[in-house]
Amino acid sequence: MTDPATPDTTTADLDDIVAAAATAAGPMATAGPSERAGWLRAAARALEAQRSVLVPLAQEESRLPEARLSGELSRTTGQLELLATEVETGAVWDAVIDHADPDWKPVPRPDLRRVAVPLGPVAVYAASNFPFAFSVAGGDTASALAAGCPVVVKAHPGHPRLSVAVAEVVAGALAEAGAPGALGLVHGFDAGIALIQHPAVRAGAFTGSIGAGRALFDLAAARPEPIPFYGELGSVNPVVVTPAAAAARAAEIGTGYAGSLSLGVGQFCTNPGILFAPSGAGVIEAAAAALAQVPAAPMLNDRIAQGYAQGLQSLREVEGVRVVVDGSSGDAPTPSLLAVDIDRFAEVDRLREECFGPVSIVVEYEDTDDVVAEVGSFDGQLTATVHGEDGDGVAAALVDTLAQRAGRVVWNDWPTGVAVTYAMQHGGPYPAATAATTSVGTAAVQRFGRPVAYQDLPQSLLPPPRRDDNPWNLPRRVDGTWQRP
Amino acid sequence: MTDPATPDTTTADLDDIVAAAATAAGPMATAGPSERAGWLRAAARALEAQRSVLVPLAQEESRLPEARLSGELSRTTGQLELLATEVETGAVWDAVIDHADPDWKPVPRPDLRRVAVPLGPVAVYAASNFPFAFSVAGGDTASALAAGCPVVVKAHPGHPRLSVAVAEVVAGALAEAGAPGALGLVHGFDAGIALIQHPAVRAGAFTGSIGAGRALFDLAAARPEPIPFYGELGSVNPVVVTPAAAAARAAEIGTGYAGSLSLGVGQFCTNPGILFAPSGAGVIEAAAAALAQVPAAPMLNDRIAQGYAQGLQSLREVEGVRVVVDGSSGDAPTPSLLAVDIDRFAEVDRLREECFGPVSIVVEYEDTDDVVAEVGSFDGQLTATVHGEDGDGVAAALVDTLAQRAGRVVWNDWPTGVAVTYAMQHGGPYPAATAATTSVGTAAVQRFGRPVAYQDLPQSLLPPPRRDDNPWNLPRRVDGTWQRP
Repeated sequence: MTDPATPDTTTADLDDIVAAAATAAGPMATAGPSERAGWLRAAARALEAQRSVLVPLAQEESRLPEARLSGELSRTTGQLELLATEVETGAVWDAVIDHADPDWKPVPRPDLRRVAVPLGPVAVYAASNFPFAFSVAGGDTASALAAGCPVVVKAHPGHPRLSVAVAEVVAGALAEAGAPGALGLVHGFDAGIALIQHPAVRAGAFTGSIGAGRALFDLAAARPEPIPFYGELGSVNPVVVTPAAAAARAAEIGTGYAGSLSLGVGQFCTNPGILFAPSGAGVIEAAAAALAQVPAAPMLNDRIAQGYAQGLQSLREVEGVRVVVDGSSGDAPTPSLLAVDIDRFAEVDRLREECFGPVSIVVEYEDTDDVVAEVGSFDGQLTATVHGEDGDGVAAALVDTLAQRAGRVVWNDWPTGVAVTYAMQHGGPYPAATAATTSVGTAAVQRFGRPVAYQDLPQSLLPPPRRDDNPWNLPRRVDGTWQRP
Repeated sequence: MTDPATPDTTTADLDDIVAAAATAAGPMATAGPSERAGWLRAAARALEAQRSVLVPLAQEESRLPEARLSGELSRTTGQLELLATEVETGAVWDAVIDHADPDWKPVPRPDLRRVAVPLGPVAVYAASNFPFAFSVAGGDTASALAAGCPVVVKAHPGHPRLSVAVAEVVAGALAEAGAPGALGLVHGFDAGIALIQHPAVRAGAFTGSIGAGRALFDLAAARPEPIPFYGELGSVNPVVVTPAAAAARAAEIGTGYAGSLSLGVGQFCTNPGILFAPSGAGVIEAAAAALAQVPAAPMLNDRIAQGYAQGLQSLREVEGVRVVVDGSSGDAPTPSLLAVDIDRFAEVDRLREECFGPVSIVVEYEDTDDVVAEVGSFDGQLTATVHGEDGDGVAAALVDTLAQRAGRVVWNDWPTGVAVTYAMQHGGPYPAATAATTSVGTAAVQRFGRPVAYQDLPQSLLPPPRRDDNPWNLPRRVDGTWQRP
């Protein structure tokens, strides 16, 4: 269902767009910290200047409320600015210098200078559920630019006109800031396939479903020259409430759970899809009461709403599943809450698959040993959460077990809300992600660099990050010792 | 052709060996810097103690001379010791801590603490050409252990009894040092396939041919849960001699070239397979004179010798290729040198494929622009080398172009000899490697970690690397600022 204003990109146009990115890659690769930071800040400023145009366009296409979208745009400009600051620290060059050492054991070593150079054009696949923050100018694009790579975005069909508007704004700002050709945009399923297979594309980044993400991962791996594919796929983000926590604050936990599972109509990759709670502890009742107050709200688009209706129905039909809150489906659903005993949960794999939308399943347990065993058998997760108390006997075992299955372990909070910081990890074992990397935070930049060592080159032939006089003032590891200007 | 002393590992035995590694993974993951360093040093000491047994066994199986093997064993113990020192710096934990910040923009941030945790059991595929340094206790094994991961090695059939001996020595030392089960060994083609497909294996590392490496990469990517596969595959390691360099020191360059291409009977992954030289500059003549002095020497095994004979013959048969030094093939070949004009070279893709053994091709050119164009069209390479002079007009363009195709760019030296240091990069764009990582040097450890963030956990539930009191004295990035004890 193509929007007539944004027709599918033809093969010839795609070739031109990728060629422009490949042409941009050369000059971009030699830009220094202030220049790279300048690109990112220019993009942030340009988006901010168009806020009054972009937010209404996003509202129209995504059905999300203004406050949410306005906040999301702030997050988007904020992460561009954080990455600009990160680029200025020089850390993203990851520079390591070994001077020649005739006494190095077991044999003398030459002069070696390693720096991360940009991979080249990156294909970014935009997500439907974050029209700004995980779309055209979102985290993947920002981190690829911060690494010095041009980007070609595959627009999400859920917000095609917003994608065009953001791409125009950002591409224009990048060109003015000295990086013409740094951002391209393509539309359509076929273009998305051709993009990951294009010989000039050097990496892929994706946020979306397991099915689509795995298909693209497989295409990236099957190329004559395989390329890295950083997919952030599905997750049910299990939450465990310990008996002590339930005894101390069942009502607070239930209310927080209701808020997290219904936030954004349940359309977050960190949505808590499964919560383990002690039988009869009152968490379910508190959550049900809070959910009854949540008004109907529209889902992102018809396809997602239909998928949710089918997924919800299939969960409700599982034998042993009880409907606690009988929410609606359709274009604008109200939240649903289901419950099942842990013995039954253990028997039905279907219950641990993601259902994208405002539903969650409470798994009631009697024995904490059963919970530790169950969560240890989960597939890879973006997040896993424990609600516990100080001195809680089972907490340590839960944290250890969950850390083996998830990229982020949360204590007494909710997984929705992913801060953009230095230490954030948004990823996890497959299928949460296709690589052991993060798509959020400053570490996301590392995905798009390739280390290259120069051996014994004269200073006159060394690019700035490798020179002894360190003209870019980079932090560097020199002869094994870190030096931070 | 199975050695009766080392029968192929059965499926049941393989399951047991991987299960032992998986059991070892838990305790290994929580070991601190001094404990991890202790494993590596114990392995190095144990190998050194058995030098008088291991070197003769390696000689017998690999046909390599004693001096070379003794040096290689020193390299092997040296890299275990270097990685022990690296582990003690704490850098491999890559610890990043963000304290909660209510003023973080655009929204308050929680307390986040990210650390690289070990991936789990690693499958290491040993190489034939380095019976010590890229085999059972070689660089891949050392870096996986340094990352806290147990290892299961697929022995190379070229030195099966040495593999058993090294595995016994090292596994025993690791067990005594507190890491029982940290090293397993399997034999046989089928076991190699089953190993990369085993659900408990979390990563693969490989040094060898493009064919075998790509097959294993494809299996790793096609798993229900794909795992990273770090393959170091083929490379022809192009060398360019500029006109100025040839005019200044043709004889020295030719002699150095002869030494590098015939070193180890040409059986190095960094062997210079192609050298671009100005027509009639005398490089060929000097190389030919030096090669005429190189005695016949045995190749690693019959299969490699046969492959070399076929590869050499097929190169000699290419129209336009001239035989400059008419070396022998067979079990113990003498070096061969071929030459071809650059126009003809540009037409025959076959000429830029690796031929494993003591042969190299001199590509004669008239115009340096043609050389830049040719090297720019090469597949990914481990190394690329320039011989030039101070103020050499073409050097900058060559270095820039070669850096886009290679992991290491060498100036006025030869690519053979890979120093084990902080800044070494042994890898490169596909097919030189299957990932943008290095298999040599301290950075090789990073391949086997997975970042996990803990959010808002109480200090009492934090493992040592994440605690405020930093009991392991790790270098950490705290609130954006690097802190190095």
